[in-house]
Amino acid sequence: MYIILVYDIGEKRVGKMLKLCRKYLSWIQNSVFEGEITEVKLKELKMKALMLMKEESDSLIIFKSRNERWLDKEIVGKERGETGNFL
Amino acid sequence: MYIILVYDIGEKRVGKMLKLCRKYLSWIQNSVFEGEITEVKLKELKMKALMLMKEESDSLIIFKSRNERWLDKEIVGKERGETGNFL
Repeated sequence: MYIILVYDIGEKRVGKMLKLCRKYLSWIQNSVFEGEITEVKLKELKMKALMLMKEESDSLIIFKSRNERWLDKEIVGKERGETGNFL
Repeated sequence: MYIILVYDIGEKRVGKMLKLCRKYLSWIQNSVFEGEITEVKLKELKMKALMLMKEESDSLIIFKSRNERWLDKEIVGKERGETGNFL
């Protein structure tokens, strides 16, 4: 499964969240990650994220696609992340 | 076409970018938008965004899917945006 993960999290917790997400996914921009992940690993990641998050203020959105080819990625401007193709 | 748009942009230009993106898409989190859009409207949005952006520092990523059903969205924690289904 290919996912895009975006978080919006309090400044104090950003460092830990970044570190956590980097273990499972590729960082592509600011608070945006992408990558192939299994259901099991995703569950693990979500559980660890929830432990970091303040549920009343922090937010995490995960877009899941069964196949990466169903999604086209286009980057306009500066490319930030570790992976990705410049179009 | 269904798209997810994420920007990472200098603070001075954030307000204008937010306003621009809201004209075309639904805001779902911080600097993340989603919605159905035509090729023509997307081109228009990209051109307007590029006029706002500093290309050496700002970045815009667009994920395109021909069909929204190919993407599952899951929100963990607080839901921020205008639309979206809580899973």
